[in-house]
Amino acid sequence: MPSNNTSKSSAIIAAQQRIKSNISSAIDINHLASDVVDGKRDALARAITLIESNRASDRPLAHDLLKKVRTINKNAQESLRIGVTGIPGVGKSTFIERFGLDLIAKGNKVAVLAIDPSSQRTGGSILGDKTRMEELVNHPKAFVRPSPAADALGGVSRATMEAIVLCEAAGYDRIVIETVGVGQSETSVRDMVDVFCLLLIGGAGDEVQGIKRGIVEMADLVIVNKADGEKISLCNDTASAYRNALHLFPKPEGGNLVDVFTISSINGDGHEEVQRKVKSLVELWKSNGFFDSQRSNQQIDRMENHARALLFENSFAKKGSTDLWNELRDKVKSGHMSAFSAAWEWTKSS
Amino acid sequence: MPSNNTSKSSAIIAAQQRIKSNISSAIDINHLASDVVDGKRDALARAITLIESNRASDRPLAHDLLKKVRTINKNAQESLRIGVTGIPGVGKSTFIERFGLDLIAKGNKVAVLAIDPSSQRTGGSILGDKTRMEELVNHPKAFVRPSPAADALGGVSRATMEAIVLCEAAGYDRIVIETVGVGQSETSVRDMVDVFCLLLIGGAGDEVQGIKRGIVEMADLVIVNKADGEKISLCNDTASAYRNALHLFPKPEGGNLVDVFTISSINGDGHEEVQRKVKSLVELWKSNGFFDSQRSNQQIDRMENHARALLFENSFAKKGSTDLWNELRDKVKSGHMSAFSAAWEWTKSS
Repeated sequence: MPSNNTSKSSAIIAAQQRIKSNISSAIDINHLASDVVDGKRDALARAITLIESNRASDRPLAHDLLKKVRTINKNAQESLRIGVTGIPGVGKSTFIERFGLDLIAKGNKVAVLAIDPSSQRTGGSILGDKTRMEELVNHPKAFVRPSPAADALGGVSRATMEAIVLCEAAGYDRIVIETVGVGQSETSVRDMVDVFCLLLIGGAGDEVQGIKRGIVEMADLVIVNKADGEKISLCNDTASAYRNALHLFPKPEGGNLVDVFTISSINGDGHEEVQRKVKSLVELWKSNGFFDSQRSNQQIDRMENHARALLFENSFAKKGSTDLWNELRDKVKSGHMSAFSAAWEWTKSS
Repeated sequence: MPSNNTSKSSAIIAAQQRIKSNISSAIDINHLASDVVDGKRDALARAITLIESNRASDRPLAHDLLKKVRTINKNAQESLRIGVTGIPGVGKSTFIERFGLDLIAKGNKVAVLAIDPSSQRTGGSILGDKTRMEELVNHPKAFVRPSPAADALGGVSRATMEAIVLCEAAGYDRIVIETVGVGQSETSVRDMVDVFCLLLIGGAGDEVQGIKRGIVEMADLVIVNKADGEKISLCNDTASAYRNALHLFPKPEGGNLVDVFTISSINGDGHEEVQRKVKSLVELWKSNGFFDSQRSNQQIDRMENHARALLFENSFAKKGSTDLWNELRDKVKSGHMSAFSAAWEWTKSS
């Protein structure tokens, strides 16, 4: 029922935007927190909007909300966080739709957080594109939501991570983070997921030019998508070239091998193999301790990064303007001042 | 004359350690700055020791020194910064010795800054290892110096980068940064050099397990070392496997291809090709603007990172103790607090 789906998505977007423009007026945090934990989707959406807010006045509320959610729901169920990256056109949404529906069929509840570089301005172009993940968006056991891209102060990491926590508290036990592997955000995403999947198209070489360097080596799974029809043999060639290549590269810390899959998200070929691989990775990592140590290290790194980001943000607030920063930056850019000296001047005056 | 070299290196180390323990007592910064710019090696060594110091009381002096060096020597000659990484045993020092001597033969002055993860405690085990870069260490047109590894607050980036600036001010126009590609430091190094070289040993696959993921994709040049005697064909096989593999990976932003070389730093095979490649990369990047834009972006990123690091450092000084930090960190680790909430508490109380 595409027409129904369309109107439903539009309604959600409209509601989210209304909330966004009026977020901190008389929010009952206790109520919101318990609604989130009760699994109410509209409460979850509002809670994420609150933690995404860049307004300084919303920060204490967001902090309070996260604290309450943890208090109410101390023993959040075991969740799995999966990152999916790839250039535009590789079929991320189609992959995630099928992948997510398969998880739901196995009894999971699935949340998809899509980091869309353009969503900061459009208020969510990913959901606005009505052809994306239609079935998943409307499934009662799924929650699909765009997440704003990184702001100047590294907001992507905070907002997306806290959205993950909220989704988990709301009972979603499989969290998929979708990101376009061309900008800054995918490194942050790698640092907040358990398993990181890179999607490629068959044909090798030129296609990956759009991806940032370092991304291929970060992948736990490489997936060659769109292996259907006459493209199957091309995709198989690409997959075996990557298999050989990845063999030469440093192995993941978790002691696993990086496998390469050919799949078709249109007809479902290879999806079961990917599901099995993800499952076996998690089993391996839980048995050798890597699963917990990776999460723990991610958390500690994130705490330090957040502290740095907040202190940096505050140093701007104190001054009331960014003029001094820009002046110092120009001196650094023109070579008249070292980066350290400029940073030193900045902190001295704050 | 190995015995002579040995005693000379030891003398340098001893002098450096004396200076280190007594650094800020009556330093004449104006005098030191002009001695550095005049190319006096002992002044350069003392200046680097000052900027490496973690003492808060040395910070203003270091800041002052860097400012003065820039004032006196505004138009530092065009320099080239080259990073060299690889696992222990790959022959980094032997490579750098020959590479550096070749540069000197072409009319350059060469500074080598070796980031040694162990040097923080031993006071410089790299120079302490007397068989390393003997000829270069004692050459009048070379300056070889260990640089401390990263401290908890990201000190590697600051200290090494400022050491580069000081070396350039002292007239060294080729700066080689040596780092072991197994820890945190090589990402920082990639962000402070123009050209990044990865050294590998022939035999492929298993050897690179010690290297951190992401490093191979960061390289501008891949160099298979120790291609001599009966290992030549093995090294050639390794090189062509990497050539095929790298073809699949994202291309560097500078528009170049990542070439793979087989060399022997013992007999000099392939060294001339590497020199030519570095030269042609720089020519390409200067003509297409990448050289300047990379340096400029590196500087701006570094300024922001330094500002964050300094503000973070100051937030500890204010409290007088790290007890609160550790308490919050433990809550994050055990899952009782989110990373953001913990960071928020930290900044609220600072």
